[in-house]
Amino acid sequence: MASLDPRTDPVDLTAALVDIESVSGHEAVIADAVEAGLREHAPHLEVVRHGDAVLARTSLGRPSRVVLAGHLDTVPVNRNLPATWTGSGADAVLHGLGTVDMKGGDAVFLHLAATLRAPRHDVTFVFYDCEEVEAERNGLGRIERELPGWLRGDLAIVGEPSNAVIEAGCQGTMRVELRRTGARAHTARAWMGDNAIHGLAEPLRRLTAYEPRVVEIDGLTYREGLQAVRVTGGVSGNVVPDEAVLSVNHRFAPDRTPEQAEAHLREVFDGFDLSVVDCSPAAQPGLGAPAAAELVRAAGGRVAAKLGWTDVARFAALGMPAVNFGPGDPTLAHTREEHVRVAEITRVAEVLRSFLGGTS
Amino acid sequence: MASLDPRTDPVDLTAALVDIESVSGHEAVIADAVEAGLREHAPHLEVVRHGDAVLARTSLGRPSRVVLAGHLDTVPVNRNLPATWTGSGADAVLHGLGTVDMKGGDAVFLHLAATLRAPRHDVTFVFYDCEEVEAERNGLGRIERELPGWLRGDLAIVGEPSNAVIEAGCQGTMRVELRRTGARAHTARAWMGDNAIHGLAEPLRRLTAYEPRVVEIDGLTYREGLQAVRVTGGVSGNVVPDEAVLSVNHRFAPDRTPEQAEAHLREVFDGFDLSVVDCSPAAQPGLGAPAAAELVRAAGGRVAAKLGWTDVARFAALGMPAVNFGPGDPTLAHTREEHVRVAEITRVAEVLRSFLGGTS
Repeated sequence: MASLDPRTDPVDLTAALVDIESVSGHEAVIADAVEAGLREHAPHLEVVRHGDAVLARTSLGRPSRVVLAGHLDTVPVNRNLPATWTGSGADAVLHGLGTVDMKGGDAVFLHLAATLRAPRHDVTFVFYDCEEVEAERNGLGRIERELPGWLRGDLAIVGEPSNAVIEAGCQGTMRVELRRTGARAHTARAWMGDNAIHGLAEPLRRLTAYEPRVVEIDGLTYREGLQAVRVTGGVSGNVVPDEAVLSVNHRFAPDRTPEQAEAHLREVFDGFDLSVVDCSPAAQPGLGAPAAAELVRAAGGRVAAKLGWTDVARFAALGMPAVNFGPGDPTLAHTREEHVRVAEITRVAEVLRSFLGGTS
Repeated sequence: MASLDPRTDPVDLTAALVDIESVSGHEAVIADAVEAGLREHAPHLEVVRHGDAVLARTSLGRPSRVVLAGHLDTVPVNRNLPATWTGSGADAVLHGLGTVDMKGGDAVFLHLAATLRAPRHDVTFVFYDCEEVEAERNGLGRIERELPGWLRGDLAIVGEPSNAVIEAGCQGTMRVELRRTGARAHTARAWMGDNAIHGLAEPLRRLTAYEPRVVEIDGLTYREGLQAVRVTGGVSGNVVPDEAVLSVNHRFAPDRTPEQAEAHLREVFDGFDLSVVDCSPAAQPGLGAPAAAELVRAAGGRVAAKLGWTDVARFAALGMPAVNFGPGDPTLAHTREEHVRVAEITRVAEVLRSFLGGTS
């Protein structure tokens, strides 16, 4: 079994987490390591294993509770493991899958879990599985259904990459399938059939011509998106295919509900058979909440808009103030070239230690 | 094991062959049945099993030899097994996968193999595998490489469906892959990436706008075609995909060589990364050969152009006169509604019995 000492410096701990491959659906090894590390080195915490999620919390009777949440999974490996280093000192950079999304945030939380013995807020740590896949498999959703008490608190901080700057709100995400049917025929007599793949030419044309909105909310700028993420079709090498499916992912700003986003997509793809296969709502920035404002001040006052969907939206739906705050440049997430400046990992750890108080 | 009596009437024998499922790559059961049927009921023939092909021949010292060839495989099942019947008498129709392409032809050849004990030509029967997939897996190609003597003769008759009319020549077939590469990114920040699936919009537009040629050769009319047969692309539901592949099948008339057909496709898809993955040349009609002309006369003189590619082209490449002649409407091949008028099965059997001479 991979072994982790959560008391290790968050930078080295990030590299150790990156080197435990954990593509969505295959998080057992990393969850085992996180659980064992906490049980051995953080005896002051109540630790619970839930599927491939690991939960831990203090129960010090503090008047407020902060939830720190990070997903353990990554998108598929793309020739970017194990972790590698460049630079040194303040300019050191860690490269590899998950360095940005989001093992840097996980490492900071894991380190704080082991080393903050007397925080000024009670703290709940949630390390979970399957964030990078369809919403119904999301580990945080499973915890919400089965162990809802573990997610309650006065503020949630999701450690998704945010350049070590507080990010507020998040865009919604919706995945739809456009299904084109046709009629099979031998390709030598194609006029007898109706080619379903040819039928995707028009929806693809609309996608390439699409101009996404740029939306301002509470002074923050959200950029929407509409992208094909999968295409399939074909029967055999000499058959006119009778079915083709195009999957499209839409990212929408917090001024739209999922229902409004769906209506928009039905308008864009008018005339085509469209079905929604996955949706997660957007979250408003929510900067009015006192606890969020306190954290913003501790972080130096800078705030940006969150473009990617994160589980901030789940906490927002529970009525809790929730923000993103984690090391790493989110524009590098899901690229082969993912890398993080170690100074950002250290910065996030310092801000949270200052905000949460208490020493080891 | 499925059992066959090749002496059975060709119509009932067609139904029996249809009911032995034999999608390309899974012909072992039908080949076992054909081999066992010939070994038991056609002791006058030399029988050889070669992979999932079955070869049989007379060696009567006749001055000429006719090769009768039929493939045993079918395209994938499409809710069209087992065989069913409609109508009766001269109007009876047999429905199901392979009734047209080409178990009717196989049944006629198998019946003649068992019942023609003293043909006026020596006869070679070739029942083979994997005709409906890429050329490199074709069983006739394997026999040509490993047992070339078995394919030699003065005339080849390929029993592909031809409405019980002699069909001359055949179109060539070429499959190419258009590969579009891009750059991955998180779909929430799609402007950081380059969507490879979106990049297929333009080749699909060209496909839908393409006007295939209609070509006259020796008074026969060939209709070309250009059809997408497979499309794939996608990494995961929230990743801008960095690769998408479109497979396209081109059918070309006998006035073009494979090299000319490839040059044409490179012109059509100019600007895209194109590679040829499979090609089989066209065959000229070849009606000048005496043996072919004799068969044409036996069949009543009617001749049509063959649009689909058939293994006639392989025999043509060996320098042999070769034609298509089999029961069934080729426009129904590879459709779910495949069906054959039993009168055509009987007609083909009668013409070939008259041409080959000899009685049981």
